[in-house]
Amino acid sequence: MKLATLRTADGTRAVRLDGDTLIDLGHADLGELFAEDGWQQRAAAATGTAYPVEGADFAPVVPNPSKVVCVGHNYTNHIKEMGRDLPAFPTLFPKFAETLIGARDDIVRPGETEAFDWEVELAVVVGKRVRRADERQAAEAVAGFTVMNDISVRDWQFRTIEWTQGKIWEATTPVGPYVVTPDEVGGVRPALEVRTTVDGEVMQRDDTGTLLFDPVFLVRYISTVITLNPGDIIATGTPAGVGNARDPKVFLVPGQTVTTEITGLGACVNKVVGA
Amino acid sequence: MKLATLRTADGTRAVRLDGDTLIDLGHADLGELFAEDGWQQRAAAATGTAYPVEGADFAPVVPNPSKVVCVGHNYTNHIKEMGRDLPAFPTLFPKFAETLIGARDDIVRPGETEAFDWEVELAVVVGKRVRRADERQAAEAVAGFTVMNDISVRDWQFRTIEWTQGKIWEATTPVGPYVVTPDEVGGVRPALEVRTTVDGEVMQRDDTGTLLFDPVFLVRYISTVITLNPGDIIATGTPAGVGNARDPKVFLVPGQTVTTEITGLGACVNKVVGA
Repeated sequence: MKLATLRTADGTRAVRLDGDTLIDLGHADLGELFAEDGWQQRAAAATGTAYPVEGADFAPVVPNPSKVVCVGHNYTNHIKEMGRDLPAFPTLFPKFAETLIGARDDIVRPGETEAFDWEVELAVVVGKRVRRADERQAAEAVAGFTVMNDISVRDWQFRTIEWTQGKIWEATTPVGPYVVTPDEVGGVRPALEVRTTVDGEVMQRDDTGTLLFDPVFLVRYISTVITLNPGDIIATGTPAGVGNARDPKVFLVPGQTVTTEITGLGACVNKVVGA
Repeated sequence: MKLATLRTADGTRAVRLDGDTLIDLGHADLGELFAEDGWQQRAAAATGTAYPVEGADFAPVVPNPSKVVCVGHNYTNHIKEMGRDLPAFPTLFPKFAETLIGARDDIVRPGETEAFDWEVELAVVVGKRVRRADERQAAEAVAGFTVMNDISVRDWQFRTIEWTQGKIWEATTPVGPYVVTPDEVGGVRPALEVRTTVDGEVMQRDDTGTLLFDPVFLVRYISTVITLNPGDIIATGTPAGVGNARDPKVFLVPGQTVTTEITGLGACVNKVVGA
């Protein structure tokens, strides 16, 4: 299944993609859906209002996750371009709910930065509450996968030794358009091409099969530390090709369109606009 | 006013301290109270059910904040003990709602660590939604102050270059017992003694008047990046004397009681127990 959260005149709605329509699942958003036991069966069987896909206004797949945990240094090539050794543990940092936007929304570049960068990422959406998950529990806790563009404000990210302040800027991070269930992409450790283009020029391209720490490992690792709730999002890190690692550095400017795409999951297509 | 969130047989309640009783304010918790315009007047005037202070079971002052932003490197003495230069910008890192516990709760030391450390902190609780707050707006957005013990799992904190995974452990971080309004502590930049004792031995002692980045500055700075909502918590950093910076290092072990206290605000008194 491909699931989404759609903005409508009556607020957001959780929907399932059926051909060229989106079927209402009876919940306000996917976070609410995933909190229900047996959501897979209900979502597959639902026969609510049909909305056209064309012109759909996608909200963040989960508009209000209790937490968004992001991983740095997870593709071999990107670790090398940043001049680092292969790590023994995943590097974790946060985003907050207000940081997220929809898959087609404009990204407003804050007036406070000129170092506004892209990062395509495979994101795991949690479909079941887990703490200290074992292998089987972690696999079962993966509701599905989506695309995140982990937009990064590099000048603020590197003001101090902690990245957080460069990663949580309000309404900067597209996530969507769909949560695609594991059965559609070959399971809970999918090998999918990820890529970023800026005005059509390819900036990043890699394969999620080359992740050092795979989705199931990350659910286990993070849930050792803290409960993962339905709707929580884990961004699994970005491959080589970010603007900050180029020589010379390249950053997003108003007027450009940045597309982050993963085969089988769809794309976030976002215009960058000035503040 | 001294405000708190109390656990009762009927769920949590927002309360005001009146002598030796806690007066019900008509809200489930302080986050809900602070989301109301004019909460100061309502809270001062409320005349609900009275609960005894003795034996009160304090919840985290805000049980479900939309975000908890913590500051590192903010007391001159602590920066020096960690061997760092005085920073130009505050270092920010997160906690999540599930990380918080009440001011008298036991702290369960996770089985995954033997480097379980204390950090007394003055915490700012936000009382008004703000984004890119100016000086006046930031001062008005301070609902009050409370005590946080920013319990840190040092071995996980230093597994990678990002501290997050050492700072967000489930149910480890006491915050409370009261949110004390600025008028009771000399305003929005209070100069108060902070201290930590472990089984009565003083481990940290400093003055919040020596913060490099004061509460109003921090509200301005963080709200530049992201909206601060009523109930959000900003932990302003810890002074010298953490266990990890001692020679030899000293960490909390089950059976000990750790007390983090700020003059005028009260104390978190927490027994450390084994997993």
